[in-house]
Amino acid sequence: MSPATTPTPAQAPTPAPAPTPARFSLNQETIRQWSLPELVTGCAEAGVGAVGLWRDPVRGFGVRETAKLVTDAGLRVSSLCRGGFFTAADPAGRAEALEDNRRAVEEAAELSAGTLVLVSGGLPPGDRDLVAARGRIADILGELAPWASAHGVRLGIEPLHPMFASDRCVVSTLGQALDIAEQFPADQVGVVADSYHLWWDERLPADLRRAGEGGRIVSVQVADWMTPLPEGVLLGRGQLGDGSIDLRGFRELADGAGYRGPVEVEIFHPGLWVRDGEEVLREVIERYRAHVE
Amino acid sequence: MSPATTPTPAQAPTPAPAPTPARFSLNQETIRQWSLPELVTGCAEAGVGAVGLWRDPVRGFGVRETAKLVTDAGLRVSSLCRGGFFTAADPAGRAEALEDNRRAVEEAAELSAGTLVLVSGGLPPGDRDLVAARGRIADILGELAPWASAHGVRLGIEPLHPMFASDRCVVSTLGQALDIAEQFPADQVGVVADSYHLWWDERLPADLRRAGEGGRIVSVQVADWMTPLPEGVLLGRGQLGDGSIDLRGFRELADGAGYRGPVEVEIFHPGLWVRDGEEVLREVIERYRAHVE
Repeated sequence: MSPATTPTPAQAPTPAPAPTPARFSLNQETIRQWSLPELVTGCAEAGVGAVGLWRDPVRGFGVRETAKLVTDAGLRVSSLCRGGFFTAADPAGRAEALEDNRRAVEEAAELSAGTLVLVSGGLPPGDRDLVAARGRIADILGELAPWASAHGVRLGIEPLHPMFASDRCVVSTLGQALDIAEQFPADQVGVVADSYHLWWDERLPADLRRAGEGGRIVSVQVADWMTPLPEGVLLGRGQLGDGSIDLRGFRELADGAGYRGPVEVEIFHPGLWVRDGEEVLREVIERYRAHVE
Repeated sequence: MSPATTPTPAQAPTPAPAPTPARFSLNQETIRQWSLPELVTGCAEAGVGAVGLWRDPVRGFGVRETAKLVTDAGLRVSSLCRGGFFTAADPAGRAEALEDNRRAVEEAAELSAGTLVLVSGGLPPGDRDLVAARGRIADILGELAPWASAHGVRLGIEPLHPMFASDRCVVSTLGQALDIAEQFPADQVGVVADSYHLWWDERLPADLRRAGEGGRIVSVQVADWMTPLPEGVLLGRGQLGDGSIDLRGFRELADGAGYRGPVEVEIFHPGLWVRDGEEVLREVIERYRAHVE
C-alpha cells in the first residue's frame, strides 16, 4: 500500500451550516437598526433570498439606489410596506391618499416588489361609521388598482388586528379583506395574511381557503403574539416561538390553500432593535426553522 | 286686594333634574373608588335602578351584607362579574375552576343577580390550541349550567375583544359565544354583549339578531373605544362619547333584537377613579343620555 493511499487521520468534518429556508424573507423592520446596505449584505451573507422593505428607509436611501443594491446582491423584494390609508372622508384627503399611493406603486415597480402592502386606514377624527369607511377603500381602489396593474404591481390588502380598527385599519379580518379584493381582478388586488393579526379568528382556515381558491394570497407574514401588550400596542409583536400562535399551523394553512411564495418575518420589537443585527438574523432564522418551516 | 293674594316676586322654579334613564345600570368598577355603601347610597340618590357588582368587593363587604344593602336601597343587581376561567387543561385546574364557579353561582343567587358573567379564560401557559381551549368551556359548562339553573342563576358568556384572546378569553366574538351557549337551554346560558369588545365586528348585527331570536341576550354593557391603548390594554375603556363607537347604534341593535333589560355602563379608566364619585356618576348619566339612550 503506497503512502498516498494512507487514510488521513480521522477528523470530524466541519458541519456545513444548514441552508436558510428557501421561502424565508426578512422584513427590514425586524432589524431596523440596519441601514439598507447592512441589510442587503447581512441577508446575502446569511443566504436569505428575499427582503420586505418599507417606504421611508427606501426613500431615504433612494429608490433607484435601493433597487440596484438589492438586485446586485441577488435578492428579491417580497413586499413593499406600505400604501393605503384610504379612509379620509373629504375630497382633499382622498386625493392626497390617491396621489401618495400612486407614488408607492411607482416605488414598488422600481423595486420589482412582489406586492405593495395596503393598510386601509382607520376612522377619520370624530367618525364612528366603520361600514362607510370600509366602503371608501373599495372606491379609491377603483382608481388605484388599474394604475398599479399598468405598473406591474400587485396590491395586497392587509387586515390588521381588531385592536387597530379605529386608528389604523378598519379592515380587521381576512374575510373583510377578501370582500374588498374580490371586487377587482385577482391579478390586481389580493390579500396579505399576517399571523399576528389573524391568529385569533376561527374563520381563518375557511378564509385562507377562499383566498387561495381565488388566487388572492399575495403575501404571508409571521410574528408571534405576546402579552402584556405595550402602550400603544404597535411594538408588541413577538419573536417566533415566544408567544401564543401556532405559527407552523398558520403557514401550513396558507400552503394548504396553495400559497407557495415567501414567508416574511415581520417583528416590531424594541428588544430586537438594540441587539447586533447579524445575531438577530441568525436567531430569527433558527426560530423560523423551529416554529414555521 | 288683600296682601295675602299678592303674588310673591317672580322666581324661576328650580328645574327638576331629568330622571335617570330607567334602563341605566352602573357597573361598580366604573367608580371603583366608592365603597359598597357609598355605591348604593350614591346610586339610590341619583335615581339609578340597578348596579353591576364584582365578586371581590362583594366578598370583602360580605355577600349577605351586600344583598341586604342593595335590597334595602331598592336597587337591583343587573350582573355579577365574574365567573369563568374555564380553560385549564389539567384535571386539577378544571376542578378548581368548577369549584370557584359554584361559589360564584351561590353569590349571584344570594344577590338575586340577573346574570353571572363568565369570562372564559385564555390559553394555558405554553398552549397554542385555541380550538381545544374553546372546547373545554362547553365541557365545564355541562356541569356548571345545571348547578346555576338549580340556584336560579343565569350564566352569560361574555366574548372579549380579540386582543385578550391569549391571556383572558379565547371567546372573541358574539358568534363564538353563541356557538357555546346554544349547546345549553336558553334559560340557563346566554351571552353578554359589551360594545367595547364587539364594536369592530361586522357580523355583530347578524349575531345580535341570532342572540335575540334565541332569547340569549342576558346582559348589555357599554364603554367607548379609545386609543392609544395603555400598557396591558385592560384599563383603556373610554367614557361614553369619548371614542369611536356608535354607542346608540349598538344599543339600538340590541333593542332591535328584542333586548329590554338594563344597559350597564362598565368603564375601567383610572382617570375616572381619581375623581369625586358623585361627579363621575352625574357625568356618566349625562353621557348615557347623550350617546346611548
